[in-house]
Amino acid sequence: MPAPADFEAFREIAEQVNNWGRWGDDDEIGTLNLITPEGVREAAATVRSGRRLSLALPLQQQGVQSGLIPGRTNPLHTMTALNWEMFGPGAVATSDDTVTMGLQAATHWDGLGHVSHGNRIYNNRPADAALTAHEGALRSGIEKPGPVLGRGVLLDVARARGVGRLPPGHVVTPDDLDAAQELARTRVRAGDIVLVRTGQIQLYLGGDREAYAFPSPGLSLHTPAWFHARDVAAVADDTLTFEVFPPEIDGLFLPVHALDLVEMGMMQGQNWNLEALAADCAEDGRYAFLLSAPPEPFTGGVGAPVVPVAVK
Amino acid sequence: MPAPADFEAFREIAEQVNNWGRWGDDDEIGTLNLITPEGVREAAATVRSGRRLSLALPLQQQGVQSGLIPGRTNPLHTMTALNWEMFGPGAVATSDDTVTMGLQAATHWDGLGHVSHGNRIYNNRPADAALTAHEGALRSGIEKPGPVLGRGVLLDVARARGVGRLPPGHVVTPDDLDAAQELARTRVRAGDIVLVRTGQIQLYLGGDREAYAFPSPGLSLHTPAWFHARDVAAVADDTLTFEVFPPEIDGLFLPVHALDLVEMGMMQGQNWNLEALAADCAEDGRYAFLLSAPPEPFTGGVGAPVVPVAVK
Amino acid sequence: MPAPADFEAFREIAEQVNNWGRWGDDDEIGTLNLITPEGVREAAATVRSGRRLSLALPLQQQGVQSGLIPGRTNPLHTMTALNWEMFGPGAVATSDDTVTMGLQAATHWDGLGHVSHGNRIYNNRPADAALTAHEGALRSGIEKPGPVLGRGVLLDVARARGVGRLPPGHVVTPDDLDAAQELARTRVRAGDIVLVRTGQIQLYLGGDREAYAFPSPGLSLHTPAWFHARDVAAVADDTLTFEVFPPEIDGLFLPVHALDLVEMGMMQGQNWNLEALAADCAEDGRYAFLLSAPPEPFTGGVGAPVVPVAVK
Amino acid sequence: MPAPADFEAFREIAEQVNNWGRWGDDDEIGTLNLITPEGVREAAATVRSGRRLSLALPLQQQGVQSGLIPGRTNPLHTMTALNWEMFGPGAVATSDDTVTMGLQAATHWDGLGHVSHGNRIYNNRPADAALTAHEGALRSGIEKPGPVLGRGVLLDVARARGVGRLPPGHVVTPDDLDAAQELARTRVRAGDIVLVRTGQIQLYLGGDREAYAFPSPGLSLHTPAWFHARDVAAVADDTLTFEVFPPEIDGLFLPVHALDLVEMGMMQGQNWNLEALAADCAEDGRYAFLLSAPPEPFTGGVGAPVVPVAVK
Repeated sequence: MPAPADFEAFREIAEQVNNWGRWGDDDEIGTLNLITPEGVREAAATVRSGRRLSLALPLQQQGVQSGLIPGRTNPLHTMTALNWEMFGPGAVATSDDTVTMGLQAATHWDGLGHVSHGNRIYNNRPADAALTAHEGALRSGIEKPGPVLGRGVLLDVARARGVGRLPPGHVVTPDDLDAAQELARTRVRAGDIVLVRTGQIQLYLGGDREAYAFPSPGLSLHTPAWFHARDVAAVADDTLTFEVFPPEIDGLFLPVHALDLVEMGMMQGQNWNLEALAADCAEDGRYAFLLSAPPEPFTGGVGAPVVPVAVK
Repeated sequence: MPAPADFEAFREIAEQVNNWGRWGDDDEIGTLNLITPEGVREAAATVRSGRRLSLALPLQQQGVQSGLIPGRTNPLHTMTALNWEMFGPGAVATSDDTVTMGLQAATHWDGLGHVSHGNRIYNNRPADAALTAHEGALRSGIEKPGPVLGRGVLLDVARARGVGRLPPGHVVTPDDLDAAQELARTRVRAGDIVLVRTGQIQLYLGGDREAYAFPSPGLSLHTPAWFHARDVAAVADDTLTFEVFPPEIDGLFLPVHALDLVEMGMMQGQNWNLEALAADCAEDGRYAFLLSAPPEPFTGGVGAPVVPVAVK
Repeated sequence: MPAPADFEAFREIAEQVNNWGRWGDDDEIGTLNLITPEGVREAAATVRSGRRLSLALPLQQQGVQSGLIPGRTNPLHTMTALNWEMFGPGAVATSDDTVTMGLQAATHWDGLGHVSHGNRIYNNRPADAALTAHEGALRSGIEKPGPVLGRGVLLDVARARGVGRLPPGHVVTPDDLDAAQELARTRVRAGDIVLVRTGQIQLYLGGDREAYAFPSPGLSLHTPAWFHARDVAAVADDTLTFEVFPPEIDGLFLPVHALDLVEMGMMQGQNWNLEALAADCAEDGRYAFLLSAPPEPFTGGVGAPVVPVAVK
Repeated sequence: MPAPADFEAFREIAEQVNNWGRWGDDDEIGTLNLITPEGVREAAATVRSGRRLSLALPLQQQGVQSGLIPGRTNPLHTMTALNWEMFGPGAVATSDDTVTMGLQAATHWDGLGHVSHGNRIYNNRPADAALTAHEGALRSGIEKPGPVLGRGVLLDVARARGVGRLPPGHVVTPDDLDAAQELARTRVRAGDIVLVRTGQIQLYLGGDREAYAFPSPGLSLHTPAWFHARDVAAVADDTLTFEVFPPEIDGLFLPVHALDLVEMGMMQGQNWNLEALAADCAEDGRYAFLLSAPPEPFTGGVGAPVVPVAVK
């Protein structure tokens, strides 16, 4: 199996977008450093209607995982107490519950420790030392980003291309992003959190999780350079694989993951439900908003559920 | 064991604060209805510095649960893949993880299904029908509230009372809330999310989770009327039990839970880390802020983890 | 939906096989009472070759559960430590692991609390009192049977009927059991643990768990009377559903479960891999053996994994 | 931290007891090879009374784990269905349950992959290749032993030394084993499964799991040679740590684990409840019996729960 670095196209982009050392050798959060207090103030200033939209899928056994990704289980929710009169008959009764789930099972962020190549994770750290079975990610764990919140911009590629949903296998290119930015009538800028809509999640919402999973439209390996040029803080989309799958180049698997997470140090969001947000943006013509999307801070996690909230 | 309704004090307050039917017989979210678009706009307008603060504890095995609450387990985080070259040697390697945890184990919201009394949950629904072993809460599940976000107000009772931390067993009274509101130089109003600081969580942060758990300062059974009078949307504090424990009245367990969750239909937050926020508010004298605190939407959940983010 | 008791066929058999009160009102283990020390001695005396055979499927993510039975998850096995030098570099390294699984996910026993009808479990106990969300089965929990061990008899129905595997939907009748007993050249007697082979598990072993699950050959609602007449202690087979599925009588679901578990108080085993045992028995012509099959004693469990071992 | 091989005492014993290559380079089960069909027949022949005794602790939240061993959680048992009328009102109702637990949380076998030293597990395999995060133990996984069953011998050291329970920290020496063998009036021979009783588990049974855990009596690093000389197949005892803890030699942690599991390839059992068995043996004077103790076959597991059954 060739390594990513065996592909010249990959090597060139990797060199171009690499952020190792940019925020110091101790940095563990990468492009999230690009969110500034000023950017947060500007994000708050985008709020006009006071409408709030959640971009999270419900967490349930009938989630998006179809068994294709080994070990990534949908939430198994069970009750540990049910109207339990802990203090005696007649007293206040309590109900409690517990869950087992893959941290990347539903609407989630990929942490920077989620992938490595050439035994390296972000900031040139050896993957075999940074990632441990006992404690998970010792560096760039998902507890490190903290309160991810800033200006969100929706790039509705499907709408910009005049379709309700991009076809399976559609490669979302920089041209697609340009077209969607045009539609959005705003310019993506430093510290923005960019949401890319393909419409693919309609398949899951319609009941077909196998079709949702694969084949999938998704981001091209040329998009990291687009994001890098604009100093984007993080990117999320509405697919299971984030990048197009099957991949663009034969034998080169997960190049976008490697470029975003390892080279740039930029978190990726997957399985975000952008449908209601897209409808709202289409209606009022405003594609920028305040976005709050802090990952659940699992110590050592390489990914985490998130409930993204857009405020317009 | 006497029922809550056997206590006259409880009955009187329950009658006073009851919200059943107020938002219609079908309502499942109670006082969250009090958050309005206008309130959200005002919340966004409080943002001045652009500082963001997370109020969530890290999710880890060494969490706040000490075993006292049966079945409420701290997060058990394990790796299902570790630098796994799924696509062959040399290819991009992935790491994945999974978790088992009590939904109310760490920084969380109590959903309206968490407690019942007299076989009733919020809005006069029979508890034994609304709560099921197989599907959890059929009504008022924690997936219903959606994007909880609005104006947050910190009532720093410890600071208002001139101490770093309220003593174990201290009953937080309406007078205490008045004093903290005075300190905050804002008036709590309809739709606010109120955060009450006791300082108790310092014990956990200092390494003593047994002392943190019990005995604990916490809210008095007279505080629901205070919140009700101001049409507060939700309340959270920095303790394990939320209300004072052991209880104020001998034999009357969890009266505040019963009044807030069942009678008013008002969510409660527990184990919120308010220390950094309190320091920030003390420094700039501003105790109101934008607060985003959507619960993880577990279908049928009676509680859920949350990563509250305050923006100032 | 008609109740089982609405069917005359069911009512008649239920009356015939009912064991409530037979071993006293406090009894929780039913027909396991029929295993006697003398029977155990006779079982030990069947051992001649010293060959040991495990009848358990491996416990793994790719187990027999295909998602059809809600919440019954295949084992999710993860490492909590991996070559971890807990005591410092160079010291002995330890590895540890954890699992989440449905107790009835793989080779298992149904406990007597697994099903109820007319709100009754075995020995006339109200199901809604005996089974609780917080503590599971307060009566007839799977920790009660203890060391299930006695004489096992293989009834190889497939072989007796001259096929390698019974066709999907084949109803295993008392005649089938008679034919298999004939083949076995032994008479089933009081205290025996009977293993009924259909061959269905070959489908799972061959990689097709959907076909394994459904439609399935299995026991007829007339077999409980056959087992009752012989005072069998327990019965297991090599299918997911134990009884034939879809059911024999339209609208009468799980009648065998109701008769065996509720009326007789007889545990049922499912997903037992009888292939190697059947080959061994066919070769030496001996179908009786020592069988050890204690359920994992989960307190309050309504089922449990088991590693049945036959010794010949 | 010195490595085990830095201690001369360890090196000498390791050389003496090493079994690498003894059953071929492909062997994964070590001393279990010593159980022969003839031995099994002899074990069956020890059965006289037909009494059966389970040596397993109940699996429950209040188990032996006190939190000292990171990630090794007591069983968390929850219901996924509770009297659920899956097929409609009135139909047969089912209850189902699920569990999350450390595989070595309760009465269990250590698999041969549980520890390594010098990056080696049993049979000279590199630990870092044999043990993986994604699939667990690729070699010597706990699914490999299969139907562990043979002659069991109880060595009741506590009784032989005239006490009900050995004191905390008592080092069980070869002399102790000799004395217990004398008491047992049988000679330990090739293929036997030896159970060593200290009485320590009385502390857990009496409600004090902290005292049970530590300090603990247990086996000396000189006992592996005793077992090796007799070609014992496996050894279990009634403590949490198996070997004496704190250790005999300052700075040499888990030497018995390293000698038994890595050098000899001999499984170890822990948390076995030997109390009832000991009473029975003392009463009839017979310390040898048929023992069935197959580990739950978790694919890739480094340990597994077991329900040991002794038949006398």
